[in-house]
Amino acid sequence: MMTLNETHNPALQSWVASANSAGTDFPVQNLPFAVFRRQASAEAFRGGVAIGDQIVDLAAVAQSGVLTGEAAAAAQAGAQDKLNALMALNTSAWSALRLALSRALREGSADQAALQACLVPQAEAEYDVPARIGDYTDFYTSLHHATNIGKQFRPDNPLLPNYKWVPIGYHGRASSIGVSGQQFRRPVGQTMPPGATEPSFGPCKRLDIELELGIFVGSGNALGEAVDISQAEDHVFGICLLNDWSARDIQGWEYQPLGPFLAKNFATTVSPWVVTLEALAPYRVAFTRPEGDPQPLAYLDSEANRSCGAFDIQLQVGLQTPKMREAGQADANICRTSYRHAYWTVAQMLTHHTVNGCNLQPGDLLGSGTLSGPTLDQAGALIELTTGGKNPIALPNGEQRTWLEDGDSIVLRGWCEKAGAARIGFGECVGTVLPARVPKG
Amino acid sequence: MMTLNETHNPALQSWVASANSAGTDFPVQNLPFAVFRRQASAEAFRGGVAIGDQIVDLAAVAQSGVLTGEAAAAAQAGAQDKLNALMALNTSAWSALRLALSRALREGSADQAALQACLVPQAEAEYDVPARIGDYTDFYTSLHHATNIGKQFRPDNPLLPNYKWVPIGYHGRASSIGVSGQQFRRPVGQTMPPGATEPSFGPCKRLDIELELGIFVGSGNALGEAVDISQAEDHVFGICLLNDWSARDIQGWEYQPLGPFLAKNFATTVSPWVVTLEALAPYRVAFTRPEGDPQPLAYLDSEANRSCGAFDIQLQVGLQTPKMREAGQADANICRTSYRHAYWTVAQMLTHHTVNGCNLQPGDLLGSGTLSGPTLDQAGALIELTTGGKNPIALPNGEQRTWLEDGDSIVLRGWCEKAGAARIGFGECVGTVLPARVPKG
Repeated sequence: MMTLNETHNPALQSWVASANSAGTDFPVQNLPFAVFRRQASAEAFRGGVAIGDQIVDLAAVAQSGVLTGEAAAAAQAGAQDKLNALMALNTSAWSALRLALSRALREGSADQAALQACLVPQAEAEYDVPARIGDYTDFYTSLHHATNIGKQFRPDNPLLPNYKWVPIGYHGRASSIGVSGQQFRRPVGQTMPPGATEPSFGPCKRLDIELELGIFVGSGNALGEAVDISQAEDHVFGICLLNDWSARDIQGWEYQPLGPFLAKNFATTVSPWVVTLEALAPYRVAFTRPEGDPQPLAYLDSEANRSCGAFDIQLQVGLQTPKMREAGQADANICRTSYRHAYWTVAQMLTHHTVNGCNLQPGDLLGSGTLSGPTLDQAGALIELTTGGKNPIALPNGEQRTWLEDGDSIVLRGWCEKAGAARIGFGECVGTVLPARVPKG
Repeated sequence: MMTLNETHNPALQSWVASANSAGTDFPVQNLPFAVFRRQASAEAFRGGVAIGDQIVDLAAVAQSGVLTGEAAAAAQAGAQDKLNALMALNTSAWSALRLALSRALREGSADQAALQACLVPQAEAEYDVPARIGDYTDFYTSLHHATNIGKQFRPDNPLLPNYKWVPIGYHGRASSIGVSGQQFRRPVGQTMPPGATEPSFGPCKRLDIELELGIFVGSGNALGEAVDISQAEDHVFGICLLNDWSARDIQGWEYQPLGPFLAKNFATTVSPWVVTLEALAPYRVAFTRPEGDPQPLAYLDSEANRSCGAFDIQLQVGLQTPKMREAGQADANICRTSYRHAYWTVAQMLTHHTVNGCNLQPGDLLGSGTLSGPTLDQAGALIELTTGGKNPIALPNGEQRTWLEDGDSIVLRGWCEKAGAARIGFGECVGTVLPARVPKG
């Protein structure tokens, strides 16, 4: 699964000039997928592929006849209003489409004129959630996050005994997943303030983020048929950014014994762009457990998973307050980490999810869980960054934040870079908090 | 919401003779919905309404022109392969269709000949899950179950402090929900045997049932817009039987801190028939809390909810072993209870689910949680009936059961009956355990 092919060659340049600029997330070596249409238009959403500051319109490509065979069929599948049909294909089809687009978008391609006619500027586009998400599952794959947040909810028992054996996951809410740009009302609900004997009711006072990656399932598995870890990644279409907004005060009161519910299901935001596992291949890294930790059970273990099952994806969280927005200031960085610190891999999540026979379907979404790294500045949630609200974050303009305030925007960013490979990125995942609407208490 | 109309008149008789027999679940006062087609046919699934031992084919009704106005539009919406479009309408449309069908199916109706042509015998039908279920949420509304099972998982802390304040719920898996007749493989997974220091891997040894009702959401609510308890039932299309199969050994090891996952998501079985809230109106009962319990917070409380927010639905669980099946013996009753014992009502579940702004969509499914009554023989799960596996159940043929064995079938039944009202029922919800398929451990 470490195989690199011609699409990864860092020397490749595109005739789309913006794809060759140093800072772009979308060089010709990336080619991530989204669904889009022109802003404020009556156009249907359809699949697109990012190249520089442009989008290759897959519906236009499918109509153009410029692609042939398996690649053309894949482009046709990607021309619908959601990517489910494309996701339902297989690695061979995804790879054929990627290779054909890579060749057509390179400098000197004979298809330049035909492809040029299929481009839409990203500046003119709006996006939708990339797939009809049948089921959304959120995992908990950062040992550091599990330990940090465990200290808040269970000071005497932060890391539970199952953590190093079971890739802990739970089902989330699909209906409230929105695409970058999502604005949502601060949730309202029950909380039990410290020392109180009866719960309170009102707007959440401890609104938080969770920096995650989202894994879109490609081809599914039948009910009752587990996926072996050696095949697990063949069922993965790609990876996006995901913000699992969390109401910590609601969570603390409601989560036992069946897990978080209203503390999470009011909104979840994903990036429009889904980066394929093939594009991420240069950034695979070895997956090793700390000395002394138990090895995974056999069904969660493989040589390939150990040698290159992890991905070194750089991650960053930015916060923009209303004051910063009014002053024309960009968001301020509050966290910087990497996906390489996760305790369980993509392959292990998918394998574990199906080991009991549970069926995954094309377009299902798996969240990685908050991707906190080993140090405090690498923590992907305010509850960790502020040590449970005790130590506010100082922002560059003099403001402070303990929890999110109304009007705050959060920007997640992700990218991969290293010597000898093209830098590729995930774009942004932005969400904004609106004031609560309070029903009768 | 207690209003009875002419459709509830217990004196009504149908020209479908089987609808007038004493034991039928489907008299003309019921008229529940399903999706069906003729067995082993290439027909499309479409909506149908049960009457005696027949099904009124809504696609045929819509084509027949026998209904007019709002009822005709509702029948047309119900003619699709899932009931989502019908569910997305409103109480007025559902009620108009019910009234029109009630009149057309009564003795002496001028539409008898036209409707007769729309009937398909239930004996020739097969069913599908009634709706495309976008999200499935499982609640925990029996205080008795929460206490009983809490003793197994947390002997020192059975009923958590939030239980009497929060209608506890969590997200379940939609993809593995099947219709009555579902057969599923015994799940495989990790367990931590008592006294062990490392988990084991293999087929579940403590396979259990959960006797529940499923509530199908009708019209939805927009993200960010909570539903007031006074409107909550207007968003409910109807109620079915639901078996939330559970792997207790997997559950015990995995469920902390984020709740049950693989212990539940391998299969969930629902009855084909969905009984409308209007049909259940004669069986509304007062909803009262035990003396000394806290009253619900204001958003979960209303005069109507207190006076008639509960439903007296009789429930029964039957178990048929392979030996019983081979001997031609019917299933044996292992539990008998009523939905009236639930601690939270349908309206409270739906209201709580949306109070934070979470959006429900037509066809979403809410499970009631295991509906155990106050006494042990009213417990809706084997973990309670056998006191955690300590006291096997004796079956009439001399066999015993602690947990489910391969080949066992479970039959859920539900019905309502009382003097002065027509008996109505839910049909059956049947599921069967197949042997495990064991992947590499």
